[in-house]
Amino acid sequence: MGDKLKGNMMIAQSGGPTVVINQSLVGAITEARKHGQIKNIYGSLNGIKGVMDEKLVDLRKETAGTLNRVAFTPCAALGSVRKKPGAQDCEIILRMLQKYDIRYFFYIGGNDSAETANILKESAKEVNYEFRCFHIPKTIDNDLLENDHTPGYGSAAKFVAMAVMGDNLDNMSLPGVKIDIIMGRHAGFLVAASALARVRETDGPHLIYFPEKPFTKEQFVRDVENAYSKHGRCLIAVSEGIADEKGEAIASKFIKEVDTHGNIQLSGSGVLGDLLSDMVRQELKVSRVRADTFGYLQRSFPGIFSDVDAKEACEVGRLAVRYAISGNMNGSVSVKRKSGKKYGVYFELVPLEKVARNTRSMPERFINKQCNDVTVDFINYAKPLAGKLPDIGFLKYRPAMRRE
Amino acid sequence: MGDKLKGNMMIAQSGGPTVVINQSLVGAITEARKHGQIKNIYGSLNGIKGVMDEKLVDLRKETAGTLNRVAFTPCAALGSVRKKPGAQDCEIILRMLQKYDIRYFFYIGGNDSAETANILKESAKEVNYEFRCFHIPKTIDNDLLENDHTPGYGSAAKFVAMAVMGDNLDNMSLPGVKIDIIMGRHAGFLVAASALARVRETDGPHLIYFPEKPFTKEQFVRDVENAYSKHGRCLIAVSEGIADEKGEAIASKFIKEVDTHGNIQLSGSGVLGDLLSDMVRQELKVSRVRADTFGYLQRSFPGIFSDVDAKEACEVGRLAVRYAISGNMNGSVSVKRKSGKKYGVYFELVPLEKVARNTRSMPERFINKQCNDVTVDFINYAKPLAGKLPDIGFLKYRPAMRRE
Repeated sequence: MGDKLKGNMMIAQSGGPTVVINQSLVGAITEARKHGQIKNIYGSLNGIKGVMDEKLVDLRKETAGTLNRVAFTPCAALGSVRKKPGAQDCEIILRMLQKYDIRYFFYIGGNDSAETANILKESAKEVNYEFRCFHIPKTIDNDLLENDHTPGYGSAAKFVAMAVMGDNLDNMSLPGVKIDIIMGRHAGFLVAASALARVRETDGPHLIYFPEKPFTKEQFVRDVENAYSKHGRCLIAVSEGIADEKGEAIASKFIKEVDTHGNIQLSGSGVLGDLLSDMVRQELKVSRVRADTFGYLQRSFPGIFSDVDAKEACEVGRLAVRYAISGNMNGSVSVKRKSGKKYGVYFELVPLEKVARNTRSMPERFINKQCNDVTVDFINYAKPLAGKLPDIGFLKYRPAMRRE
Repeated sequence: MGDKLKGNMMIAQSGGPTVVINQSLVGAITEARKHGQIKNIYGSLNGIKGVMDEKLVDLRKETAGTLNRVAFTPCAALGSVRKKPGAQDCEIILRMLQKYDIRYFFYIGGNDSAETANILKESAKEVNYEFRCFHIPKTIDNDLLENDHTPGYGSAAKFVAMAVMGDNLDNMSLPGVKIDIIMGRHAGFLVAASALARVRETDGPHLIYFPEKPFTKEQFVRDVENAYSKHGRCLIAVSEGIADEKGEAIASKFIKEVDTHGNIQLSGSGVLGDLLSDMVRQELKVSRVRADTFGYLQRSFPGIFSDVDAKEACEVGRLAVRYAISGNMNGSVSVKRKSGKKYGVYFELVPLEKVARNTRSMPERFINKQCNDVTVDFINYAKPLAGKLPDIGFLKYRPAMRRE
């Protein structure tokens, strides 16, 4: 198969973890072991940081049994990092790649990781080092360009749908206003998945707010008031990334941490939920107002994953290796959806620069006119990705015969 | 079996939901249907509020299929309430009980619900109304007196253990200080369950803080510093109910809501996690500090329950009905553990007043000397209650051969 560039392989993981990111890792390792032109298989600990610090592990020494268990274990088994390599970093990395005769490099991550892969590819080209560099997609945010959806999203969507399903029952048990803050810095795909929680028409979430649409206190309070008076309760799903009309994230006014890719840290704090709770308490006469911030559980909860997502995550890892050994190329493995009613995907190699840097948002057709809910189009899009949800039972509530 | 007091039955749910509270409901309904001396089976919506407002449903009309699905559905299928009946309320309730010829009353809930049941029992006695009143235990807090553990706890413990298991992997992937706020107003049983997440010695939670032991900023900061320098990261499980040396909850300084039983509302806000994050950021040189508040997911997440817990929750419901029809008595069904190595339970009827009002805390033997972790005794106690946890796989991390 393909040409015969012989050498060693290196693989690493980067960015926020997902529940299926190790599926991609194991898919790639397992595939690489089948091909003689790949000699050593190195794992770099904590992304490119491990290359720079020469913290490398020998992945040929892992048994199939271990790898199989690791595949179903959440979060980056090799450790992760949030780091964009500067010019000096690139020099160090390149020296290491040459030292270890790395000819195949695989970076599992989001758009920032694709950018890193692209930078490394360009650096290698400058010094005429023969090197094949691949990005393997993962992100719960589902915001990669060139992809119908990204590995990691389906499982996070399933977790969010299940959590909101439970919270809807909780909110029915003890009625009030409940706000759930859901991950997604710039893209509303994950908060949108809360809509999958609905079983009956009256089920929450009754309102959904996206980072793509300007958030105003006025509309929020009015929406909550309407929903509360209609249902006697109100369950609201809010993206952590909701922003004002100038595009400034509401939470960013209270949070200061920024990573080296320039991303403001929105997760890991309850500040946005508490802020919105206070708005409702102040503006409306509702005594019971609560907020939960789902936080890191959305990307790390063990045992809850979408079967489709796990399979696809494994497949993009496997395919990256097959592309790499089949010829002189670089790229990102993208997930495309087949047309037709039955769900199916195919994969395509796309240039790294097309996935790097920019991200995508929810298409207009997925958000309703009032900008406070999803459309049927979104439900049809997301349902097969999240897969089967728990079966919920409701009493029929037949009123008892009145006595005089 | 027993005497032949004929009449109608009423059942209701009260307090915070659990994932298995409907097991108790369905256990009681299913048992009641077997006994001819119970005629109508009324469900009161939202606890005693439904009795007062005459919002009653006919539970004989529910099919076995519906009931089976409801049993595995989290949160109170009949709705819940947090309400302590005053003298006037009791009058109204008693009138309703007589009007509907209710001779058997079952209240599923925590110690506040046992208190309510006891108040109703006494009110009925005063007017010589023949009436059998039972409390069916549930609480994720595990704080009922007279019980080895309470239905609802095992499943919540499983959720907490799974969440912390995932968060430990997340914290390994992207090292830093991570704080998880876990439910439990006065009792540390649930935060203690985070210890079940550990697979290897280095796994988090590295520190656990209980509401039973005075929380000081000084010890907290020192503990975190030590753990962080030992592990290069630090995962901390903190009870929402941690209190200062005077017993005042740390979070209560920021939260104002109080229910009619006099309980301060600690859940549904991220304030405590953010406060502790700020402490770590200010006092230690750690750049990455995050806090998640697990919130209502701990008591309402569908599909995650402990098998043992589900079975026992069904059994206490079933047994309450059997006690009720077997003779002139009242009480609370309590769960006791058999002695011996193999896990097993038996049930006992205890007087309502023994379970009402007061709650229990973690025994001293479950908390370590430093007051920042559990003991082996606790692990042995809690493990069979939470049941099986997901299988986690770790790479062996065999260092790669160094090159020169």
